Amino acid sequence: PRTGQSEVVFGQGKSPEQLVLAVGGLLEAGQPALVTRLDSARGEYLAKHVPEGVYWPTAGLFTVGRPVDLSEPWPSAGQAMVIAAGASDLPVALEVLGCAMFFGLDCGLASDVGVAGLHRLLQRGESLAKARLHIVVAGMEGALPSVVAGLYGKPVIGVPTSVGYGTGLGGIAALLSMLNACAPGIAVVNIDNGYGAAAMAAKLLG
Amino acid sequence: PRTGQSEVVFGQGKSPEQLVLAVGGLLEAGQPALVTRLDSARGEYLAKHVPEGVYWPTAGLFTVGRPVDLSEPWPSAGQAMVIAAGASDLPVALEVLGCAMFFGLDCGLASDVGVAGLHRLLQRGESLAKARLHIVVAGMEGALPSVVAGLYGKPVIGVPTSVGYGTGLGGIAALLSMLNACAPGIAVVNIDNGYGAAAMAAKLLG
Amino acid sequence: PRTGQSEVVFGQGKSPEQLVLAVGGLLEAGQPALVTRLDSARGEYLAKHVPEGVYWPTAGLFTVGRPVDLSEPWPSAGQAMVIAAGASDLPVALEVLGCAMFFGLDCGLASDVGVAGLHRLLQRGESLAKARLHIVVAGMEGALPSVVAGLYGKPVIGVPTSVGYGTGLGGIAALLSMLNACAPGIAVVNIDNGYGAAAMAAKLLG
Amino acid sequence: PRTGQSEVVFGQGKSPEQLVLAVGGLLEAGQPALVTRLDSARGEYLAKHVPEGVYWPTAGLFTVGRPVDLSEPWPSAGQAMVIAAGASDLPVALEVLGCAMFFGLDCGLASDVGVAGLHRLLQRGESLAKARLHIVVAGMEGALPSVVAGLYGKPVIGVPTSVGYGTGLGGIAALLSMLNACAPGIAVVNIDNGYGAAAMAAKLLG
Amino acid sequence: PRTGQSEVVFGQGKSPEQLVLAVGGLLEAGQPALVTRLDSARGEYLAKHVPEGVYWPTAGLFTVGRPVDLSEPWPSAGQAMVIAAGASDLPVALEVLGCAMFFGLDCGLASDVGVAGLHRLLQRGESLAKARLHIVVAGMEGALPSVVAGLYGKPVIGVPTSVGYGTGLGGIAALLSMLNACAPGIAVVNIDNGYGAAAMAAKLLG
Amino acid sequence: PRTGQSEVVFGQGKSPEQLVLAVGGLLEAGQPALVTRLDSARGEYLAKHVPEGVYWPTAGLFTVGRPVDLSEPWPSAGQAMVIAAGASDLPVALEVLGCAMFFGLDCGLASDVGVAGLHRLLQRGESLAKARLHIVVAGMEGALPSVVAGLYGKPVIGVPTSVGYGTGLGGIAALLSMLNACAPGIAVVNIDNGYGAAAMAAKLLG
Amino acid sequence: PRTGQSEVVFGQGKSPEQLVLAVGGLLEAGQPALVTRLDSARGEYLAKHVPEGVYWPTAGLFTVGRPVDLSEPWPSAGQAMVIAAGASDLPVALEVLGCAMFFGLDCGLASDVGVAGLHRLLQRGESLAKARLHIVVAGMEGALPSVVAGLYGKPVIGVPTSVGYGTGLGGIAALLSMLNACAPGIAVVNIDNGYGAAAMAAKLLG
Amino acid sequence: PRTGQSEVVFGQGKSPEQLVLAVGGLLEAGQPALVTRLDSARGEYLAKHVPEGVYWPTAGLFTVGRPVDLSEPWPSAGQAMVIAAGASDLPVALEVLGCAMFFGLDCGLASDVGVAGLHRLLQRGESLAKARLHIVVAGMEGALPSVVAGLYGKPVIGVPTSVGYGTGLGGIAALLSMLNACAPGIAVVNIDNGYGAAAMAAKLLG
Ligand SMILES: Nc1ncnc2c1ncn2[C@@H]1O[C@H](COP(=O)(O)O)[C@@H](O)[C@H]1O
Ligand SMILES: Nc1ncnc2c1ncn2[C@@H]1O[C@H](COP(=O)(O)O)[C@@H](O)[C@H]1O
Ligand SMILES: Nc1ncnc2c1ncn2[C@@H]1O[C@H](COP(=O)(O)O)[C@@H](O)[C@H]1O
Ligand SMILES: Nc1ncnc2c1ncn2[C@@H]1O[C@H](COP(=O)(O)O)[C@@H](O)[C@H]1O
Ligand SMILES: [Mg+2]
Ligand SMILES: [Mg+2]
Ligand SMILES: [Mg+2]
Ligand SMILES: [Mg+2]
Ligand SMILES: [Mg+2]
Ligand SMILES: [Mg+2]
Ligand SMILES: [Mg+2]
Ligand SMILES: [Mg+2]
Repeated sequence: PRTGQSEVVFGQGKSPEQLVLAVGGLLEAGQPALVTRLDSARGEYLAKHVPEGVYWPTAGLFTVGRPVDLSEPWPSAGQAMVIAAGASDLPVALEVLGCAMFFGLDCGLASDVGVAGLHRLLQRGESLAKARLHIVVAGMEGALPSVVAGLYGKPVIGVPTSVGYGTGLGGIAALLSMLNACAPGIAVVNIDNGYGAAAMAAKLLG
Repeated sequence: PRTGQSEVVFGQGKSPEQLVLAVGGLLEAGQPALVTRLDSARGEYLAKHVPEGVYWPTAGLFTVGRPVDLSEPWPSAGQAMVIAAGASDLPVALEVLGCAMFFGLDCGLASDVGVAGLHRLLQRGESLAKARLHIVVAGMEGALPSVVAGLYGKPVIGVPTSVGYGTGLGGIAALLSMLNACAPGIAVVNIDNGYGAAAMAAKLLG
Repeated sequence: PRTGQSEVVFGQGKSPEQLVLAVGGLLEAGQPALVTRLDSARGEYLAKHVPEGVYWPTAGLFTVGRPVDLSEPWPSAGQAMVIAAGASDLPVALEVLGCAMFFGLDCGLASDVGVAGLHRLLQRGESLAKARLHIVVAGMEGALPSVVAGLYGKPVIGVPTSVGYGTGLGGIAALLSMLNACAPGIAVVNIDNGYGAAAMAAKLLG
Repeated sequence: PRTGQSEVVFGQGKSPEQLVLAVGGLLEAGQPALVTRLDSARGEYLAKHVPEGVYWPTAGLFTVGRPVDLSEPWPSAGQAMVIAAGASDLPVALEVLGCAMFFGLDCGLASDVGVAGLHRLLQRGESLAKARLHIVVAGMEGALPSVVAGLYGKPVIGVPTSVGYGTGLGGIAALLSMLNACAPGIAVVNIDNGYGAAAMAAKLLG
Repeated sequence: PRTGQSEVVFGQGKSPEQLVLAVGGLLEAGQPALVTRLDSARGEYLAKHVPEGVYWPTAGLFTVGRPVDLSEPWPSAGQAMVIAAGASDLPVALEVLGCAMFFGLDCGLASDVGVAGLHRLLQRGESLAKARLHIVVAGMEGALPSVVAGLYGKPVIGVPTSVGYGTGLGGIAALLSMLNACAPGIAVVNIDNGYGAAAMAAKLLG
Repeated sequence: PRTGQSEVVFGQGKSPEQLVLAVGGLLEAGQPALVTRLDSARGEYLAKHVPEGVYWPTAGLFTVGRPVDLSEPWPSAGQAMVIAAGASDLPVALEVLGCAMFFGLDCGLASDVGVAGLHRLLQRGESLAKARLHIVVAGMEGALPSVVAGLYGKPVIGVPTSVGYGTGLGGIAALLSMLNACAPGIAVVNIDNGYGAAAMAAKLLG
Repeated sequence: PRTGQSEVVFGQGKSPEQLVLAVGGLLEAGQPALVTRLDSARGEYLAKHVPEGVYWPTAGLFTVGRPVDLSEPWPSAGQAMVIAAGASDLPVALEVLGCAMFFGLDCGLASDVGVAGLHRLLQRGESLAKARLHIVVAGMEGALPSVVAGLYGKPVIGVPTSVGYGTGLGGIAALLSMLNACAPGIAVVNIDNGYGAAAMAAKLLG
Repeated sequence: PRTGQSEVVFGQGKSPEQLVLAVGGLLEAGQPALVTRLDSARGEYLAKHVPEGVYWPTAGLFTVGRPVDLSEPWPSAGQAMVIAAGASDLPVALEVLGCAMFFGLDCGLASDVGVAGLHRLLQRGESLAKARLHIVVAGMEGALPSVVAGLYGKPVIGVPTSVGYGTGLGGIAALLSMLNACAPGIAVVNIDNGYGAAAMAAKLLG
C-alpha cells in the first residue's frame, strides 16, 4: 500500500478461522504478514495452520515472510532504541521490537531501567546516546519519557502500558503523565500500542 | 541546552514581572527567547518592556532573537506541513508555525481543510505529498489525522484542540480519536499543545 | 404495540428459564419473537427449548416467526445500508442486519471498509449511493461516520462498538468521535447497540 | 454541496472579522448563509455588517437568504415536531427550529412539556401524533425522549442540553439517559447541538 | 444497636469461614442475622453450616432468625412498594424485598413495569397509590423514578442498577438520571444497593 | 398539583422577564411562589417587580405567599434538622431551610458542626436526637452523613455541596462518599440540591 | 540501595520463572527478598522453588530473609498502628503489616473498627494514642481517616481499598474522600497499596 | 485543640464579614490565626480590618500572631525542604512555606528545579540531603516526586498542582502520577493543598 508498510492484521476480537483466512490471503498475494494482539489459543492455532510463520507468545505477535527474532539476547543498540521501565512492561516492549523487525527498522532494546533505579538507565548511556529516536515503554506513573527526554534530548515516542493497579486506571495515569511532560520532544501512542510506536518509528526513520 | 533547542518559557500562570525577568535573563545570556500561552494583557506588557521582541496575539507567542513572522500569507509548503481542520483551530496551528519558525524548521501551513470538506484537502495534495511529516491540528471529532495518514502515508503528529462543545470535553474527544486511529504512523501531543508538536518535529527533522 | 414493532426481549442478565418463558408467551400470543444479547450458552438453550426458532451466534440473536437469515453472502444493497469498519465489528453489524430483517426492513451490508482503506469503501459506491440511510458501525477512533456523511450526504446512524483497547475505553472514544462529527446529518445510538439502530431505521423508513 | 444542504458556519471561536468574511463569501457565491453559536457581541456585529441578515439572540443564530422567523407564536405543528422539556431549554429548541426553517423543513415546536408535568405533553397529543419525527430537547435527567417514544412510537432524535447543575455534568447525564433509553427508536446528537438535529431531520424528511 | 436495626454483614470479599464466624457470633448473642451480596458458592456454604438459616440465590441474601420468604407470589401491596423496571432488575428488587422483610417492614413488589410500557405500571395503580413510599429499582436510563414521582407524588427512593451495557457505565447512567430528576421528592442510594434502600425505608416508616 | 406541593420555578438559565411572568402567573392563580437558584441580579429584579415577595440572597431563593424567614437566629430544633458541616456550606443549608419553610415543614438548623470538630456536633445532641429526620449538608470529603447516621440512627438525607477544590471535583467526592456510606439509612440528592432535600423531607413528614 | 530499604519485587504481571529468578538474584547477593501482589498460583510456585521463604496468601506477599509472621494474633500495639475499617479490608491491612515487619518497623494492627461502629475504635484507644503514626485502611466511603485524625491528632497515612461496589468505583470514592478530608495531617497512597504505606512509614519512623 | 495545631480557617467561599468574625474570634481567645485560599479582594479586606495581621498575596494566606515571613530570599535549608518544579507552582509552594512557618516548622524552599532541568535540582543537593522530609510541589506531569524519592530516598509528601492545561485536567494528571510512583516512600495530598502538606509535615516532625 501507499505507506510503504505491509498491511497488518489486528488480531483481537477475530475468530481463529478469520485469522487464518486473512493471513492466507496476504501470503497468496506474495506479501509478508504480521498479526498483533494474539492470545496463546489463537496464536498457536495460527502457527499450526500457517506453519511457515512463528507465534511469539510474550509479544502476542504472529509473523511470516520477514526476518523477525524475539529470542534473547535482544539487540542492545540500534537507530531506534526501545527503553522499557520494568520487567512487567516486557510484553509491550517486545511488541515494539517485533513489529520494528518486521518493518525492517534497526532497533535495540534496553529493559528494566525504570525511574526508581536511574543508575541502570545511565549504564546504557552509550547506546542510548547513539540512537536517533527513543521509544519509551512505561506503566504506573509513566515518568520515564520525561526523564529520558531530559537526559538525552532525542525525540521520544511514549508508549504507556496498562501495568499498575488502582489509580493507574489501566494505563491512563501513565498516558496523562506522558502527554503533560514538560520536557520538549515527546509524542504518545495508545496504551499498550507497541505496534503503533513501531509503525511511527519506521516511517520516521525509513 | 543538550537538546539543541533554546529554552522555552511557559507563559501561563506567570506574572508580567516574572516574564520580563525570564526573557531578560535569556537575552543577557545571549540566547533568543520564546514565550508560549500568553494572553493579550501579558503579551502586550512583554512587548512593551522588551521592545526588540514581537507578540503574536492569535498564537499567544512572544518571540525575540530569531526570525519569526506569522503575518499572512503563510508559507504554503515545507519539510513539515501543518494541516488545520477549521478556522477555529487557527490559534493552535499558528502556535505550531511560530514555534517551528523559532526552531528554524522549514514549515508550511494548510488551513480550513477539515474532514467535512475533503476536496479542500485534496486541492493541497502536491505540497502535502512533498512534506516529510504532517502535523495535523483538529478539534471536535479529531478524525483528520486518520484521513491524512490514510491518504498520504507520512508520519503524523496529531494536535487535538479544545475547539468544540458538550461531549467534545475540551479536546478529550479529539485526543481519544487520534490515539485510537487505525491508520498507522500517528503519535499525539497534549490538547492545544502546538509548541510540543513543533519541538518534536524540529527534533525529528533537525 | 403502538409502535408497529413487535416487542423485543433484552437477553442479557436473564436466566435461561426466564427467556424460554418470555419467548413462549409471545409465541402463544401469536407474535414473532426477537431476543438480543445472548451468549452461546443461553442462545443454544433457547434454540433447544424453542426449536422453531434460530440462534445466530455471531450476532447473539434468537429469532422466531419472521424470515431472518444471517448466513453468507449477506445482501449487498438495500434501502438502508449497514457499513462496518473492520472484521472485528461484524458481531454488531450482524445484530443490525438481523434485527432489520426481523423488522422487515430492506437492508444491505458492506463490511471491512474502514477509514484506513478508503478505496474499499469507494468500491461499494454504487449501492451506498442508492440507499436512503446509512448505518455506520465502527469501533476504535469511530471516524467512519464522518467520512461516509461527507462522501455520500445521506443521513447516518452511527453505532460505536467496543472494539479497541486502552484509550478506546470500551467504545467511549468511538462514541465521542461520532457525537462531535462536523459533517451534518449524524445521530448516534449506544455502544454496540445494533438493535437500537435497526429499530430507528425501521421506524424512519417503515 | 453534495448533501443538498447549504454550508453552515460554526460561529464559536471565530473573530467578528472572520465571520463577516465567511458570510460575505457565501453571499457573493449566491448562497444563503447560516451561522451558529453566536453570542450577542458577535451576533450584533454580524447583523450590523451584513444588514440583509438577521441575528436571533436566544437561538444564537444568524440567517440570511432564507425565510427564517423565530418570533412568537412558533408553529404548533409540522412534519417534524420539536418537543422541549423546560423553559431553560428554549435556546436549544430555537436553534433546532431556526436551522430547520433555514433548511426548508416543515417544523413545529411544543415547549415546557417536561416529564414532571406529563399532562402538558398529553394536551399537545394531536399535533404530536401527526408528526413523522420527534426532536426531543431536554436537560437535567433527560428522560423525556423515553417517555415520548413510549407514548407516540415515532422515531426520536434526542438533543441533550447542558441545563442543570452538579451531577448534570453539563449535559452528560441527559446524554447518557437518552443513549440508554429502553424505548426503541431513539438516536442522539451532541449536547446542545440543535443544529445537528435539524440537519439530520432535514435529510431524513427532505 | 442504637439504630433499632440488627447488624448486617456485608458478604462480598469475605471468606466462607469469616462468614460462618460472623453469623455464628450474632446467633450466639441471640440476634437474627442478615448477610448481603453472597454468590452461590459462599451462600450455599453458609446454608450448609448454619442450617437454621436460608440462602436466597437470586437476591444473594442469607437470613436467619426473622420471617423472610422470597418465593413467588410476592406481596402485591404494602406500606412501601418496590417498583422494578425490568426482569433483569429482579435480583436487586428482591434484595430490597428480602431486607425489608428482615427489618419487619410491610412491603410489596411490582415487577417488569418499566418506562417503555407505561400501561403495565398504570395497571398497578391502586396498590401504588395506597403505599406511603415508593422504592424504584431501574437500570439502563433510570427514568422510572421521575415518571413514578410525577404520577403518584409519593416520596421515592431510587435504586439504580448495573443492568445495561456500553454507556450504561455499570449503573452510572441510571444513577445520574435519578439524581437529576426534575420531579420533586426523589433521593438515591448506591448502584445495586437494595439493602440500603430497605434500611432507609424501614427507618422512615418504622 | 397532585403531589400536594406548590409548583416551584427553577430560576437558573431563565431571563428576568421569564421569571416575572412565571411568578405572576402563579400569583394570579392564587398560588404561592418559590423560585430557586437565583443570582443577585435576577433575584433583585424579581423583588423589584414582585414587591410582595422577598429575595434571600445567601440562599438564592425568592418566596412569596408563604411565611418564610431566613434571618438569624435560625430555628434550633424541628421535626427535620438540617446539619451543615462548614460555614461555606451555608448557602445550601439555607436553601434547604427556606424551601422547608415554604413547604410548611417544621425544620431546624445546626451549622458549622463538621467532622473535624465533632464536639460541636455533640453539643447539639438534644435537638438532634429529637428530630425524626436529619438532612446533612457537606462538601469536601462528605463524611458527615456517615457519622451522623452512626451516632443518632435517624434516617439521613445527604446533600453533597460543591464546596472544596481539586479532587473535590465540584462535589463529586462528597457525593460518592455519601453513596458509599456503610452506616445504614442514608439516601442522597444532587450536589447543592437543597430544594430537593426539602421537598423529599416535606413529603416524608408531611 | 540508597534508601536504606531492600529492593522489593512487584509480583503482578510477572511469570513464575521471572519471579524465581528475581528472588534468586537477591538471595545470591545476600539480600532479603519481598515480593508483593502475588496470587496463590504464583505465590505457591515461589514457595516451592524458594523453600526458605514463606508465602502469605491473604496478604499476597512472599518474604524471605527477614522475620515476618502474619499468623494470628497480630501485634495489638506499635510505633505505627494499622487501623482497618472492615473485615473485607484485611488483605490490604495485612500487606501493610507484612511489609512493615519486613522493613523492621514496630507495627500493630486494629481490625474491623469502621465508622459505622465507632465504639469498637474507641475500645482500642490506649494503643492508638500511644502510636506515633496511624495507617488507616478503608474502602467504601473511606471516611475513617478523617475520624481517626479528628480523634487522635496523629499524622495519618490513608490507604483506600477497592472494597465496595457500584459508585465505589474500585476504590476511587474512598481515595477522593481521603484526599478531601478536612481534618489536617492526612496523606494518601494508591488504592490497595499497602506496600507503599509501609515503605513511607518505615522511612518516617526509621 | 488536641492536635497541637491552632485551628485554621478555610477562606474560600466565605464572605469578608464571616472572615473578619472568624479571625476576631480566634484573636480574642488569645490564639494566632491562619486563613488560607484568599483572593486579593478578601485578603486585603482582612488586612485592613485586622491590621495586626499580614496578607501574603502570592500564597493566598493571611497570618497573625505567629512569625511568618514570605518575602525573598526564602530559607534555603531546613528539616523539611519544599521542592517546587516550576515558577508557575510558586503560589502553592509558598502556601506550604507560609503554613509551615505558622506551625513553627523549620522549613526551606528550592524553586524552579523541575524534571526537564535536573541539573538545577542536583545543584541543591547538599541542603536536600540534609533534610528529613521532602515536600515536592509539581503540576503538569507530576514526575518530580518519583525522581526526588529515587535520588535522595527521603520520605516525600507530593503536592500536585493545577498548573497545566488540556489533559493536565486541573492537576489530576499530576496527582495520578504521584499516586502511581514506583519509588517507595511517597504519599500525596489534594491538588494545590499546600496547607495540608505543611500540616502533615509539622505533625511528623513536630
Ligand atoms: N506551551 C507549552 N506546553 C507545554 N510545555 C511548555 C510550553 N511552553 C514551555 N513549555 C515547557 O515548560 C518548561 C519551562 O517551564 P517554566 O520554567 O515554568 O518556564 C520547559 O520545559 C518547556 O519545554
Ligand atoms: N453548531 C454546530 N455544531 C456542530 N457543527 C457545526 C455547527 N455549526 C456548524 N457546524 C459544522 O461546522 C462545519 C463548518 O465549520 P467551519 O468551517 O469552522 O465554519 C460544517 O461542517 C458544519 O456542518
Ligand atoms: N449490601 C450492602 N451495601 C452496603 N452496605 C452494606 C451492605 N450490607 C451490609 N452493609 C453494611 O456493612 C457494614 C457491615 O460491614 P462488615 O463489618 O464488613 O460486615 C454495616 O454497616 C452494614 O450496614
Ligand atoms: N505493591 C506495589 N505497589 C507499588 N509499587 C511496588 C509494589 N511492589 C513493589 N513496588 C515497586 O516496584 C519496583 C520494582 O518493580 P519491578 O522491577 O518490576 O519488580 C520498586 O520500585 C518497588 O518499590
Ligand atoms: Mg525492576
Ligand atoms: Mg470551514
Ligand atoms: Mg481490515
Ligand atoms: Mg416548567
Ligand atoms: Mg419487559
Ligand atoms: Mg469551621
Ligand atoms: Mg463489621
Ligand atoms: Mg523553568
